[in-house]
Amino acid sequence: MAVDPLRLSARVEHDGVWDRVAIEEPLEIRVRGDALAVTMRTPGHDEELALGFLFGEGLIDAPAGAGPSPDLAANTVDVDAELRFAPGRRRFYTTSSCGVCGKGALAEIAVHAPPPSPGPTVSRALLASLPDRLRQPAFEATGGLHATGLFDVNGTLVVVREDVGRHNAMDKVIGRALLDGHVPLRGLLLCVSCRLSFELVQKAAVAGAPVLVGVGAPTSLAVQAAADRGMTLCGFARGGRVNVYSGSERVLAG
Amino acid sequence: MAVDPLRLSARVEHDGVWDRVAIEEPLEIRVRGDALAVTMRTPGHDEELALGFLFGEGLIDAPAGAGPSPDLAANTVDVDAELRFAPGRRRFYTTSSCGVCGKGALAEIAVHAPPPSPGPTVSRALLASLPDRLRQPAFEATGGLHATGLFDVNGTLVVVREDVGRHNAMDKVIGRALLDGHVPLRGLLLCVSCRLSFELVQKAAVAGAPVLVGVGAPTSLAVQAAADRGMTLCGFARGGRVNVYSGSERVLAG
Repeated sequence: MAVDPLRLSARVEHDGVWDRVAIEEPLEIRVRGDALAVTMRTPGHDEELALGFLFGEGLIDAPAGAGPSPDLAANTVDVDAELRFAPGRRRFYTTSSCGVCGKGALAEIAVHAPPPSPGPTVSRALLASLPDRLRQPAFEATGGLHATGLFDVNGTLVVVREDVGRHNAMDKVIGRALLDGHVPLRGLLLCVSCRLSFELVQKAAVAGAPVLVGVGAPTSLAVQAAADRGMTLCGFARGGRVNVYSGSERVLAG
Repeated sequence: MAVDPLRLSARVEHDGVWDRVAIEEPLEIRVRGDALAVTMRTPGHDEELALGFLFGEGLIDAPAGAGPSPDLAANTVDVDAELRFAPGRRRFYTTSSCGVCGKGALAEIAVHAPPPSPGPTVSRALLASLPDRLRQPAFEATGGLHATGLFDVNGTLVVVREDVGRHNAMDKVIGRALLDGHVPLRGLLLCVSCRLSFELVQKAAVAGAPVLVGVGAPTSLAVQAAADRGMTLCGFARGGRVNVYSGSERVLAG
């Protein structure tokens, strides 16, 4: 297996031909030297991933003092930040990083997420066009990467990140936005290349995103959480069309 | 939002029309009353999910003594089993349930997974046809569910499970196989509706599956893990074609 310099894809042989696959490697996220999480991710932008992940979980307030990953090959990143609380016993072993259960789930978001901005208002056509504006060079080579993009109200791409994990791609974008002082994401649009789960809505809500667009289907809890939060949630954005599940006051006809 | 009796999908309104979305709710997995994990899943087959998850993590040997979920609406399931070890500190907070890091990752699989059976040998055409044999009634209604199917060597479906989480769908199938005495999965074929990550290969390996087929792309670590384990890994199974990344000795031309 030959790894490319960007470490997004590697060459593998199948059926007598050489092809490219997305790279997946474990990353251990540490806070002041203490191992807190392991996630399977595509290498690169590890500092953003760590910051976005910790922020989305409500564990840190701001990126102040976060240090870059000293050695990509080590597959560890160490964040120099004060934790807002110690991760609790019940988050132990979860496969979804949700850490909430039953009826309390949506209340849990409400505690940690700021209300999104009333605006922006954007056209349905612009929302439907966002997936086409989501550049995915590594996906095109491998077919194996999810992407998250942050756009302004004109549909101009601010930042895009690709990763084998859809949660990681959003964590990286939010981590980048934190470092650039764009959080809360007032007046900005998030777009994901995948389905819309509760967790993606939660991460977007914690970052203060007013609008989240997905290429795929939303789940029931994603729709409910977005509606409760006052977020505009759009799914099945493809072929020039889009479904608006909540927050339609931000969506203009045409 | 109106929930259907099977609790796989719910009706939501968007753009003035009613549509169906896949149901997503948190499930707390307990072992002898002690909360161990929370996963976001589609309700139903929760006992299978809990057993498959715990088995895939190497935490239990067998399903003996596992009790069914007494009340679906409670979103908890309690498993009556002896844990093989206490979940360690470093698995804390992981988003991927991987719990391994860096160079030790593949060695970690080798400890817990049995070697797969030498056979079966199956035709390339049969492998390519498995996704079409994967019945997904709830996906057809919602576009929002992943599926895992277990097949015999003739391509006859043994069991299929759908879930908003692709890991959950495989956990449910393996949990069902455990209850039915089909583990290790000698002579059987697993097929998933999604991309092939390291974790899916790991779960299949722990259950002793000789063959894993996916509709989507594999990651680098999925290919490496399957090759190291002696598992046949096939990706991009669509349109009558399939790529064979490892274990091609089980694949017959035609």
